[in-house]
Amino acid sequence: MIARYQTPEMAALWSEENRYRMWALVEAYALEAWEALGQVPKGLAARLLKKLEERPLDAAFAQRVAELEAVTRHDLVAFTRALAEWAEDEEVGRYLHLGLTSSDIVDTAQNALLVRALDLILEELQGVAEALKRLALRYKHTPAIARTHGVHAEPTSFGLRFLSFLAAFQRDEERLRRARETIGVAMLSGSVGNYAHVPPEVEAHVAGRLGLEPEPVSTQVVPRDRHAEVLSALAILGGNLERVAVELRHLQRTEVLEAQEPFREGQTGSSSMPHKKNPVSLENLTGVARLLRGYLVPVLENIALWHERDISHSSVERVALPDATTLAHYALRRLRGILEGLEVFEENLAKNLDLTRGLVYSQQVLNALIQRGLPRDQAYALVQRNALRSWEEGKSFLELLEQDPENPLKGEALRALFDPAPFLKHVDAIYARFGL
Amino acid sequence: MIARYQTPEMAALWSEENRYRMWALVEAYALEAWEALGQVPKGLAARLLKKLEERPLDAAFAQRVAELEAVTRHDLVAFTRALAEWAEDEEVGRYLHLGLTSSDIVDTAQNALLVRALDLILEELQGVAEALKRLALRYKHTPAIARTHGVHAEPTSFGLRFLSFLAAFQRDEERLRRARETIGVAMLSGSVGNYAHVPPEVEAHVAGRLGLEPEPVSTQVVPRDRHAEVLSALAILGGNLERVAVELRHLQRTEVLEAQEPFREGQTGSSSMPHKKNPVSLENLTGVARLLRGYLVPVLENIALWHERDISHSSVERVALPDATTLAHYALRRLRGILEGLEVFEENLAKNLDLTRGLVYSQQVLNALIQRGLPRDQAYALVQRNALRSWEEGKSFLELLEQDPENPLKGEALRALFDPAPFLKHVDAIYARFGL
Amino acid sequence: MIARYQTPEMAALWSEENRYRMWALVEAYALEAWEALGQVPKGLAARLLKKLEERPLDAAFAQRVAELEAVTRHDLVAFTRALAEWAEDEEVGRYLHLGLTSSDIVDTAQNALLVRALDLILEELQGVAEALKRLALRYKHTPAIARTHGVHAEPTSFGLRFLSFLAAFQRDEERLRRARETIGVAMLSGSVGNYAHVPPEVEAHVAGRLGLEPEPVSTQVVPRDRHAEVLSALAILGGNLERVAVELRHLQRTEVLEAQEPFREGQTGSSSMPHKKNPVSLENLTGVARLLRGYLVPVLENIALWHERDISHSSVERVALPDATTLAHYALRRLRGILEGLEVFEENLAKNLDLTRGLVYSQQVLNALIQRGLPRDQAYALVQRNALRSWEEGKSFLELLEQDPENPLKGEALRALFDPAPFLKHVDAIYARFGL
Amino acid sequence: MIARYQTPEMAALWSEENRYRMWALVEAYALEAWEALGQVPKGLAARLLKKLEERPLDAAFAQRVAELEAVTRHDLVAFTRALAEWAEDEEVGRYLHLGLTSSDIVDTAQNALLVRALDLILEELQGVAEALKRLALRYKHTPAIARTHGVHAEPTSFGLRFLSFLAAFQRDEERLRRARETIGVAMLSGSVGNYAHVPPEVEAHVAGRLGLEPEPVSTQVVPRDRHAEVLSALAILGGNLERVAVELRHLQRTEVLEAQEPFREGQTGSSSMPHKKNPVSLENLTGVARLLRGYLVPVLENIALWHERDISHSSVERVALPDATTLAHYALRRLRGILEGLEVFEENLAKNLDLTRGLVYSQQVLNALIQRGLPRDQAYALVQRNALRSWEEGKSFLELLEQDPENPLKGEALRALFDPAPFLKHVDAIYARFGL
Repeated sequence: MIARYQTPEMAALWSEENRYRMWALVEAYALEAWEALGQVPKGLAARLLKKLEERPLDAAFAQRVAELEAVTRHDLVAFTRALAEWAEDEEVGRYLHLGLTSSDIVDTAQNALLVRALDLILEELQGVAEALKRLALRYKHTPAIARTHGVHAEPTSFGLRFLSFLAAFQRDEERLRRARETIGVAMLSGSVGNYAHVPPEVEAHVAGRLGLEPEPVSTQVVPRDRHAEVLSALAILGGNLERVAVELRHLQRTEVLEAQEPFREGQTGSSSMPHKKNPVSLENLTGVARLLRGYLVPVLENIALWHERDISHSSVERVALPDATTLAHYALRRLRGILEGLEVFEENLAKNLDLTRGLVYSQQVLNALIQRGLPRDQAYALVQRNALRSWEEGKSFLELLEQDPENPLKGEALRALFDPAPFLKHVDAIYARFGL
Repeated sequence: MIARYQTPEMAALWSEENRYRMWALVEAYALEAWEALGQVPKGLAARLLKKLEERPLDAAFAQRVAELEAVTRHDLVAFTRALAEWAEDEEVGRYLHLGLTSSDIVDTAQNALLVRALDLILEELQGVAEALKRLALRYKHTPAIARTHGVHAEPTSFGLRFLSFLAAFQRDEERLRRARETIGVAMLSGSVGNYAHVPPEVEAHVAGRLGLEPEPVSTQVVPRDRHAEVLSALAILGGNLERVAVELRHLQRTEVLEAQEPFREGQTGSSSMPHKKNPVSLENLTGVARLLRGYLVPVLENIALWHERDISHSSVERVALPDATTLAHYALRRLRGILEGLEVFEENLAKNLDLTRGLVYSQQVLNALIQRGLPRDQAYALVQRNALRSWEEGKSFLELLEQDPENPLKGEALRALFDPAPFLKHVDAIYARFGL
Repeated sequence: MIARYQTPEMAALWSEENRYRMWALVEAYALEAWEALGQVPKGLAARLLKKLEERPLDAAFAQRVAELEAVTRHDLVAFTRALAEWAEDEEVGRYLHLGLTSSDIVDTAQNALLVRALDLILEELQGVAEALKRLALRYKHTPAIARTHGVHAEPTSFGLRFLSFLAAFQRDEERLRRARETIGVAMLSGSVGNYAHVPPEVEAHVAGRLGLEPEPVSTQVVPRDRHAEVLSALAILGGNLERVAVELRHLQRTEVLEAQEPFREGQTGSSSMPHKKNPVSLENLTGVARLLRGYLVPVLENIALWHERDISHSSVERVALPDATTLAHYALRRLRGILEGLEVFEENLAKNLDLTRGLVYSQQVLNALIQRGLPRDQAYALVQRNALRSWEEGKSFLELLEQDPENPLKGEALRALFDPAPFLKHVDAIYARFGL
Repeated sequence: MIARYQTPEMAALWSEENRYRMWALVEAYALEAWEALGQVPKGLAARLLKKLEERPLDAAFAQRVAELEAVTRHDLVAFTRALAEWAEDEEVGRYLHLGLTSSDIVDTAQNALLVRALDLILEELQGVAEALKRLALRYKHTPAIARTHGVHAEPTSFGLRFLSFLAAFQRDEERLRRARETIGVAMLSGSVGNYAHVPPEVEAHVAGRLGLEPEPVSTQVVPRDRHAEVLSALAILGGNLERVAVELRHLQRTEVLEAQEPFREGQTGSSSMPHKKNPVSLENLTGVARLLRGYLVPVLENIALWHERDISHSSVERVALPDATTLAHYALRRLRGILEGLEVFEENLAKNLDLTRGLVYSQQVLNALIQRGLPRDQAYALVQRNALRSWEEGKSFLELLEQDPENPLKGEALRALFDPAPFLKHVDAIYARFGL
């Protein structure tokens, strides 16, 4: 991913050095298992692990791998040779990678990194959820106009939309947790997945060391529907990010202006038009959501590899896995910042609620007329006649009703109907479902 | 979906008549709830439900809805008018749809249909799993060549690939069950999701009647990440269908011919070439998998609706939901038939295993030489020299080794290494993880 | 495609009967060519063509094909048998399909249908272009606020957006015409594309009869990048349809209400709120655009068939080609209706232009001050100070400037700057590029 | 794009320094135009251009932009400030960016870069086409088995597949050239596309200097269907790359082994199995094709921006445009290397042609029998009987026919039919269509 959309954590996680570190850990843990099986001299793995801790694999090491790969044209072979050189330990050279095939290392390490990437995303999602919770609570009883098809509908709680977003992200959290579990497998099953040269005990040990589960049946690789589940969870998360972004972008329109993403000191909008504060961060998130959808497509195509494996998935994954997880992390962090600094213009909420001059209460009036004893047809005709005139002539619906001689509802009894409160009467019950 | 790819069950499920039936049921169950709340005369819902059972909504009813929709340009309004006419019950006309908005009916009914569609898919998946289990068991100890990159690698169990497919479909089952749970919500929350005109009790009652859970927070519609999860589970299922199809298509290649999809009596291959039995069903499944991926894309875009809803998702869902579920059902059924009738040519398995004249055992020879005490470098040189000659001159690797004067391994000790059995030694352990 | 989104023309074009008719024509034209080569008795093709004209292939014929396909499991074989029966002409039975392979018929006929489908789409696109041209001309000199990021920017011509849409559709027209040319090929090259059993002259003749070009090199099938180009042109067209739809949906927002899609007599918005006219047709088009993108994905995957062909593309194309062309045709027709009946509220254009109380003219004021001799910094400070006050206190920018003692520009000289006309001064030049 | 898949040319083209250089050029060319209009002192642009040539914008400059952007949160504003500082020329500071809006620079420069990126791709495509031409010619008359559905069909020219690929890439070339023309527009039309602050002459001049055409009608941005056309051409190119890759991967299967991608000195296949040369480069291209499809999806969604623009396309384009063009360039170069070094095993072509022991000639025998005067039914029965026996018993079809007492064709007359030559008789005519 381009630097602009990297977070420091994801940049570190997916750095070449960290990948090599993870590869080395998998190799070392495998050596531990072989030691326990008596196939490798005791203490070898501990020596390697100690070295890795004291002297982390760095850019120079990566450079050496690159040199060797230029000859071997095989990244893992180059890596093991470089690691053997680096370790300066004859026994490491002799036993490293014993019984394993490249994918045992690459796939297991990649899964371990994906699990950590998902943890970062889940942590950031938690922050977004907290911010949404605060907004939902703050505006729980603030009336606002609800819109369907972009057209004013009826009053509702302004906070309810944040609760709805919160619920969506809670489903995302659930999907991401499952995807984390799905991808959280270690595989060390040898060339074609039958443990011909490495017993299942090695896999079980490495899995345990990495906090993963053993892959129950593999080919040369971990099956790729697992990765597709991760990317699909991220694409759906992207959809929810976009949903929030689109809502807030709408609210920031000049004509609506109910909310505004934070505008930093020194930030340049327009040089002369002070209202020109653009929701550029929200628009950015909208684009990120598109990218997240885009990365899912090739990853879905990776599932049908040939026979025990072909390597067509590799180029896709080298790009799509770091890019998609990094973008998701970046977008959540950016959204969190937006939500934490969101400006809400309550006076505009009130102004917009009244934009149709009371028409949003017409259903209340209709029901009251029927309860007052008017036949439905007659009540309906009365309401519609005045509503239409209000809309077309730009007059107050309430005043027109006051003046209508056929209307039995007048004064306080009528005015009381022009109230958003009844529309918020079940809001507490909805919030209660979320313990709020 | 075009008739060619419909199953009878899915055709019935997504028929216009059945959708109207489901809409009518949601309306009737809502009336039951209103009765319990004392807002609707007792017995009304029961009368309506009885009528629906005695006189199912048919093509004539659908025709009447179409006529009314041509005027109202609103499908649900047309439906409720048609239903009121059809019921010939004045009270139905008066109370039908009380306090509800169109989406309450349409979304709840659609979710109920999706749950049933997923049940059909899960049932068919069960059949596929059974067929895979049988194949896995039948060929558990049958040696076959495993291929990576399309190139012969090492011997393995022929049955193991079926176990691997089984495991993939078990993950699909899990994803589909979760998706079924995710989509299994009923929503009757009124115009903008705040229950202003219908109390939550109505929703709870209808949900219970349909075997669904109440949607905890809605706008005018059920949030669309739920639908995206369903389509994403189907797209991944498609990937696994394609994985099986691609494997079997490879096995049916003339040069490989280890397996063949069933060829029916009377089926036309080539008029004169009897080997021209084409894996057309498997190729069909490959295409279906592409379509399933294709339907996911627009459904992911549906998540970000405007404000409390816009109706842009509707055209997508009218097409993608029936089409994707129908295709998945069709594909699973077709795959099941293929697997149940799959021909396996064991003589070709044996022939292909020996295609490289023993080279696939070179690693066994290498290990035996080292155990016999040869230094690794020397053993390696010996093996590689003979392997290369075998490959280039088309001679038996075993015979070349017998003739190599530097080779200490001869006779039975050598011949014993040319045996696939050691490659299958952990197969029982792998199967045991699946209780097989 | 579901009936709801079919146009009569596309329904007829893609009907089973019409496909069989096209298959029969390809067979008959091939017989003509064979006659010219002296391989088939003279007059045979003419007899077949005459029969096809007198007695079109109907549902009964399609039924017979279905019966035969149930046995042969091969649609084209079933078709030729059924056609031979139907023709009741012994020589037809003997020579029909001479030297051809199924794909020769199926691919050539499908391309001929696609060409006709694209013609229908191009015709409908013409209607949309006409409607856009009229709107562009009608509102050429109507000032309106332009918005970037959804925030008011500067005045512009209201008509200019329609000109911009027109230009986009002109590019679509160009892309569709090229795609029509790309797909407009006939192929009759036999089993594996080498004309082993049918000379190139037959292909050339059939191509000529169908208004197509011969495919210069084929395998068993026409290469599928041709189809991908068609679907990609349709997906981009969908993007432009969505662009128009999203613009007009924005303009129909209650707070903006500069335009409104036509609302038919009898159409049901809300029972009591007369402003509840929803842009449901435009929202529908937005969804259709998503579907069009979705159909492109599997068609792109169809390009890489195995060797001389596999049939995985077939299931994709049976669904995606009729569905995508039908949806495009439907959407263009619907958009045309919307544009032809579009209501524009000029009073709201004016009202919105002034919504920021003159701030949109701040750059004009700034420039005038500089021309009047004020140093840029000083002019800028003056403008910004008043602009900020206008925004924050809701006061007229013009009045504040009038009252600012440091402002040298007053009276008519100042008022003249609050004029959208200068923003429209190049509009004629832009239109002139389109001959308007 | 990750370094692994970058080419040096694309890395340079899309480097930050080169982007800034292009931005600076657009600014400088605009100054030239203003000079001609008498609005800017003569010689200013020339001074700036000279400086840019003498002292290219470097990493330090990019660093300065980054610092300024951290405050302004607007990349173009930061850039113009940095450029003004860097120029150390008071007049540059005063007139730089006169009358322009950010998108005028960013969109025009991006289009200029895309045109150059497409040129690089077209150049590499030329190399691929040359390599294909050579292969097509070298194997023009080499018989090989053609396969449909992965099953042997009939003999054909081995070279014909390369001609077919060549034709596909020629169509790609055509699509890329059109896309280059479509994206080759310059836009300098000011804040909302109406040239309010910059006359069309400036745009015309800048376009001319960059070898672009003026955008005939814009909003604040160049319309995004232009970019979608570029990505769609790249996605289809990817499909054709995949088609070649899949064909060659099939040919490299152990059982087929008709061709092999070049295997470099020192490259590591298997340590002991010399046949283990894996088509890893071709598999890599297959994955790249998936990525190219993936990048198209978000770019298609970018078309429908809000009103005169929102900036949601920006994040998509920052990633997808460099990544997709870079991947296409990389993949073409890699394919070119593969094709130039492709090993073809003619002995295996011959062996595979005979794999079905003559059955691929059954249609020749059938036709000869009919010409010899046998009724079709009788001839057919004779052929099929022997073909079936040949297939089932693994015997030579020719020998069985020799032995069949009912067969009138014997000896040389029969043997002559077992000849691939007739299947190649039109190959010259096909090649001639391509001037080969």
